[in-house]
Amino acid sequence: MIDLNSDLGEGFGIWRLGDDDALLDVVTSANVACGFHAGDPSTMRRVCARAAERGVAVGAQVSYRDLAGFGRRFIDADPTELADEVLYQIGALDACARAAGTAVSYVKPHGALYNATVHHDKQAEAVVAGVKAFGELPVLGLPGSRLLHHASRAGLRAVCEAFADRAYTPEGTLVPRTQPGAVLTDTQQVLEQVLRLARRGELIAISGETLATEVDSICLHGDTPGAVDHARSVRTALTEAGVAVGRFVAG
Amino acid sequence: MIDLNSDLGEGFGIWRLGDDDALLDVVTSANVACGFHAGDPSTMRRVCARAAERGVAVGAQVSYRDLAGFGRRFIDADPTELADEVLYQIGALDACARAAGTAVSYVKPHGALYNATVHHDKQAEAVVAGVKAFGELPVLGLPGSRLLHHASRAGLRAVCEAFADRAYTPEGTLVPRTQPGAVLTDTQQVLEQVLRLARRGELIAISGETLATEVDSICLHGDTPGAVDHARSVRTALTEAGVAVGRFVAG
Amino acid sequence: MIDLNSDLGEGFGIWRLGDDDALLDVVTSANVACGFHAGDPSTMRRVCARAAERGVAVGAQVSYRDLAGFGRRFIDADPTELADEVLYQIGALDACARAAGTAVSYVKPHGALYNATVHHDKQAEAVVAGVKAFGELPVLGLPGSRLLHHASRAGLRAVCEAFADRAYTPEGTLVPRTQPGAVLTDTQQVLEQVLRLARRGELIAISGETLATEVDSICLHGDTPGAVDHARSVRTALTEAGVAVGRFVAG
Amino acid sequence: MIDLNSDLGEGFGIWRLGDDDALLDVVTSANVACGFHAGDPSTMRRVCARAAERGVAVGAQVSYRDLAGFGRRFIDADPTELADEVLYQIGALDACARAAGTAVSYVKPHGALYNATVHHDKQAEAVVAGVKAFGELPVLGLPGSRLLHHASRAGLRAVCEAFADRAYTPEGTLVPRTQPGAVLTDTQQVLEQVLRLARRGELIAISGETLATEVDSICLHGDTPGAVDHARSVRTALTEAGVAVGRFVAG
Repeated sequence: MIDLNSDLGEGFGIWRLGDDDALLDVVTSANVACGFHAGDPSTMRRVCARAAERGVAVGAQVSYRDLAGFGRRFIDADPTELADEVLYQIGALDACARAAGTAVSYVKPHGALYNATVHHDKQAEAVVAGVKAFGELPVLGLPGSRLLHHASRAGLRAVCEAFADRAYTPEGTLVPRTQPGAVLTDTQQVLEQVLRLARRGELIAISGETLATEVDSICLHGDTPGAVDHARSVRTALTEAGVAVGRFVAG
Repeated sequence: MIDLNSDLGEGFGIWRLGDDDALLDVVTSANVACGFHAGDPSTMRRVCARAAERGVAVGAQVSYRDLAGFGRRFIDADPTELADEVLYQIGALDACARAAGTAVSYVKPHGALYNATVHHDKQAEAVVAGVKAFGELPVLGLPGSRLLHHASRAGLRAVCEAFADRAYTPEGTLVPRTQPGAVLTDTQQVLEQVLRLARRGELIAISGETLATEVDSICLHGDTPGAVDHARSVRTALTEAGVAVGRFVAG
Repeated sequence: MIDLNSDLGEGFGIWRLGDDDALLDVVTSANVACGFHAGDPSTMRRVCARAAERGVAVGAQVSYRDLAGFGRRFIDADPTELADEVLYQIGALDACARAAGTAVSYVKPHGALYNATVHHDKQAEAVVAGVKAFGELPVLGLPGSRLLHHASRAGLRAVCEAFADRAYTPEGTLVPRTQPGAVLTDTQQVLEQVLRLARRGELIAISGETLATEVDSICLHGDTPGAVDHARSVRTALTEAGVAVGRFVAG
Repeated sequence: MIDLNSDLGEGFGIWRLGDDDALLDVVTSANVACGFHAGDPSTMRRVCARAAERGVAVGAQVSYRDLAGFGRRFIDADPTELADEVLYQIGALDACARAAGTAVSYVKPHGALYNATVHHDKQAEAVVAGVKAFGELPVLGLPGSRLLHHASRAGLRAVCEAFADRAYTPEGTLVPRTQPGAVLTDTQQVLEQVLRLARRGELIAISGETLATEVDSICLHGDTPGAVDHARSVRTALTEAGVAVGRFVAG
């Protein structure tokens, strides 16, 4: 069985981003922005309510405090402060989720914090400390990342994800968005990557090598052109291939 | 028995305001800023931890989103959005409190939101809706305010407070800070007001009338000159007068 | 001759709003957001550069400091601080404009500040004080507003605007967006209102009365459905009716 | 002749930091915060007005956008966006300065941006591009930094500063605040360092080596214990030693 996750609730005030409602009909886990890179309280409650209605798991998509940069810029944050910011964000979202009859059931760092915690030991440890201060929640991240390493060491469930529409380096990390070919836009290519991941636990790197990888969840993006169509195609293809789609946390 | 409450954790980042540690040795309830008018996550955790150590109750001091104005300016916020912002703030602080082994045990609006919800029916209802969405927490406010009216109607405990160092109008509302005599700075005057409140449930208005008032808690300010000395004198005077000082929520 | 103005540059960071480039081909004056309700520095520079290329005048669309509310909520700001915030915003935009070879040539308050300064004497005076502290710039506003009254008294040019797509009360103020019929969505109705304004200086109120009004500029919205199409139709209709379209400030 | 500069106007809203008025009686150049790490518009105007009264030069203390971190955390900002943010900040402060009868006469990056632009070529170039987009202003920085290199290459005056109360590495960079001995707190040590700088253009590194250095201005901190007393002592000591103290830009 495979989980499908997507970043949701990434508007702020008057501004909207992506089609939350359409994606909520496709995914099984919703990474909800918590107000630090996006996500005002009303958007957070609305997304939680709709996720709850559909049985979609709510995860806290925690970020550096950076609305202007959408959390996409590395910030050399003090680890103690970062842990506290993670705790704050989870708590805020959990209140919204509980008001909707659900709860935060996992945590996934957003953007630059996601990328930083692949290698940055202190920040990875800080994110895990923030999660742990809240409770025993699973952490969603890249296989082999410092983040998942520290999550496991702290006794938290480490959930491995792969990206449907991102190219990989031979080391199993994401090709940076600034490089050509970083984002897969061809539907066929996306579907092949997803089916290979779900059935064989394998990826083909941008350089051609086949990589073995652990996958509990596949991340679908909502902000690239044709994103919703891709997401729907992925779900249909998995079902047709006989792969069960379901949330990685009980609900 | 009377409760003593004070606004705490009102710094932000590098900036500090008031002497949190000194006041935590005096009060029985701490109104902790939740990040919207003041209060970064690290300050929130630190204040919660110290409150927990001393058995001081932690309350969510919810505010309009207005760091630049310290929450002291009325904002004509949409009631639905305001309720969601209140929920967000309580949840964020509750996570910090639980990490410190305690929990948010009441809610008190800050500054302009406190003043607005005395008369502004929709915003008072919105604050109560936000609290109610979080849980059955007591609401601390001015006797006779729309806020406490709506709290009671919603089945929440309405906790009445009076101010040690503020002058009152004949209608029982606070003399605005912009008027002369609004803040009592003479220690003797402060002590007389507090003892009259605690022993007789009475106030003397700026115009000389004696007003009957309900009082469960007395608010001590931390940001006026000599604030900490006043606060200590108030506690000592109450104890010497045989008035028991204790938190209004069990802990 | 009539000027056409529109609110532009109202995105923030990753978020976009409206079609700036399309509107810049239609209007003669661009009200550029200055960072307080919308508008990051890069957006500001880009809009200024494109306005300069097309000979479109750049105006500072000053606002309350309220990204979360998009400047659409009244804030009871202190007049001195408000004046200083207006000055700050004009200066920031002027630097962007000068880097693009143009300059800020007028000021128009945004959203709730626009509405407040119709009647709120102190805030109207504060906006004018902020403009005056920067320089002798024209102020764009509603005929009969306190804003234009104070602008004239301060020796600034008061520029009168009317709205292409908004319904008017019999008193000549805008029907609030919360009321039905507040925004005209029928193209024919919009064109009739614009032609009546430009040729006769008249409006028909929502209640049916004909109102005489001064008009130097007509405001076209960019954020309503079909906004760009309306804007193009307005410009075409004016030209076909023999009304010259041009900026109210020399450029 | 030597200039004395200090960071000023570093409060925000209700929060204050340092003693601006006292330092303005000592320094000849005021690095005024522009709202991105500190500095609300009213504080900016007030500091500019007082600087103008005393003939103190006003410089733009530009920063990453980071109120929560006081600009002390490296942000991996996009160079184009960073340049635009620098331009925005200078423009905002210049409006405040002109309203006070003066103008921004130089630029100095703050905190983490100051430290980053010692080595980070792209960000150093970006800061210079932002300054250049505003006008031909001098740039204040560390001798040997990429910032001053790019300033010179762009035809801007590169002004070299040294720190009165900071220890130096043998490479001539600042010992990080996280290391012991980074900040000199002994008055005698501060005075010796200043006199050696002003008279011989020399520093003694923390490791004991004597370093030759260019110095046009000496930076006095306002936020360390005893800062104002140190600053006054420095000015007195320089005067007594026959070193003329004066601003590096004409005024």
